[in-house]
Amino acid sequence: MTTAEIFAQIQKKKSFLCIGLDVDLAKIPAFLLEKEDPIFEFNKAIIDATHHLCVAYKPNTAFYEAYGIKGWKALKKTICYLNEKHPDIFTIADAKRGDIGNTSTMYAKAFFEDLSFDSVTVAPYMGKDSVEPFLAFENKHTILLALTSNQGAFDFQTQKVNEQELYKQVLETSKTWNNSENLMYVVGATKAEFLADIRQIIPDAFLLVPGVGAQGGNLQDVCKYGMNKQVGLLINSSRGIIYVSNGEDFAEAAAKKASELQEQMAEILS
Amino acid sequence: MTTAEIFAQIQKKKSFLCIGLDVDLAKIPAFLLEKEDPIFEFNKAIIDATHHLCVAYKPNTAFYEAYGIKGWKALKKTICYLNEKHPDIFTIADAKRGDIGNTSTMYAKAFFEDLSFDSVTVAPYMGKDSVEPFLAFENKHTILLALTSNQGAFDFQTQKVNEQELYKQVLETSKTWNNSENLMYVVGATKAEFLADIRQIIPDAFLLVPGVGAQGGNLQDVCKYGMNKQVGLLINSSRGIIYVSNGEDFAEAAAKKASELQEQMAEILS
Repeated sequence: MTTAEIFAQIQKKKSFLCIGLDVDLAKIPAFLLEKEDPIFEFNKAIIDATHHLCVAYKPNTAFYEAYGIKGWKALKKTICYLNEKHPDIFTIADAKRGDIGNTSTMYAKAFFEDLSFDSVTVAPYMGKDSVEPFLAFENKHTILLALTSNQGAFDFQTQKVNEQELYKQVLETSKTWNNSENLMYVVGATKAEFLADIRQIIPDAFLLVPGVGAQGGNLQDVCKYGMNKQVGLLINSSRGIIYVSNGEDFAEAAAKKASELQEQMAEILS
Repeated sequence: MTTAEIFAQIQKKKSFLCIGLDVDLAKIPAFLLEKEDPIFEFNKAIIDATHHLCVAYKPNTAFYEAYGIKGWKALKKTICYLNEKHPDIFTIADAKRGDIGNTSTMYAKAFFEDLSFDSVTVAPYMGKDSVEPFLAFENKHTILLALTSNQGAFDFQTQKVNEQELYKQVLETSKTWNNSENLMYVVGATKAEFLADIRQIIPDAFLLVPGVGAQGGNLQDVCKYGMNKQVGLLINSSRGIIYVSNGEDFAEAAAKKASELQEQMAEILS
């Protein structure tokens, strides 16, 4: 999927919402646990109720791996369902992978070929040759961690490296890598005031922005500092949408919450 | 498993070798491809032939994820086989995970509970709250990426942060985290000359050292600069051992190569 296609979706749906599918069996409605594949049934219901309100879905792989083979199967079923029913929606494997070259190639195959995701999140610590194997895949996107939404971001990411914060160094350096046009970046909504500086370095790239909702980030601030000509933002909410209710009405309640965010986005876009 | 138990193994086997189980179906003997689970059959044969020569096994999860559910099943069978047949051998899930707190907890459950590994490799970019959920597990070890063996390590890890290289900052900072006694660190053998400085900061921690063999690192140099009272080193070789032959004799050939390394280690220990 190209960024132009993502932008077309944004204009059509008047939304730049990404819904995080982080399924925790301890939090989903109890009646689903009796089903053969509760994780997939939960995701399917959420997708059926919200697909017209969002432009991207982002399963975080941790929540699937925690359930072993059963979880991995549910992840596969979820991405197959998305690709079959909603091929126009951008899919993100939030996996935060990264390893030496030949190993990163195997991760890229896992997410781009075996699971057919449009994109995958990748950690930058191991540098160029750990990220370029992902960038080599045509029409796929590599979403590099830059400035994350958690408190630990201040441990290393905002430390000064050669008079520039590490996350800015990551942005600058990554622009020189092969196929860097396939890069997007993770920037946490909890650090919206950093977005103006970030847009100086990467004016055109799409940003995946977690942290609106449960983590306390503010949508208006993120848009004020982070929006570009193609919008350039995918605002993620996971817990804030999918766990609004754990009753029979969970999907409906999630859609209502997603709709509230979509309406705010429509207003910002108009 | 405690580090004292690892040290006891090292003394008993006169070895501090870790064998990387990075199974690539394009590289294993062709006759195995006819078996129902070629990945597990390959690992089983390697384990049967080498378990007396090494103190740790390290499957890199990328090589399993690349084969989807089939790969994940083979990983599960491999770790179950190891825990059943060789509970005294230290097991490392080389997964390089790391995410915000509640998500890292799910990864920790995946590797420490569902798969019952003794340890997992973790990336430091997201800081304290992305690593502490792993450290909270008793008798489990978190192996933090410090200075990796690849060329990309020079992109960020060796850059100066507040007058100290980033990897040293990672070492210093991580010592202040809760349950930091459960930390080990990845330090690439290709950068052996950095080990003297590293031992100033973390004299007692175990180091997982990849990069001897295929990547060009030197065993003698690593030991000269990196060894401590408990030895404190787990020297990994993957491709350099498991792909010596792709004929019927592959396991025997791997054992021969492992034995050469073990003999060098025995000499260093004596």
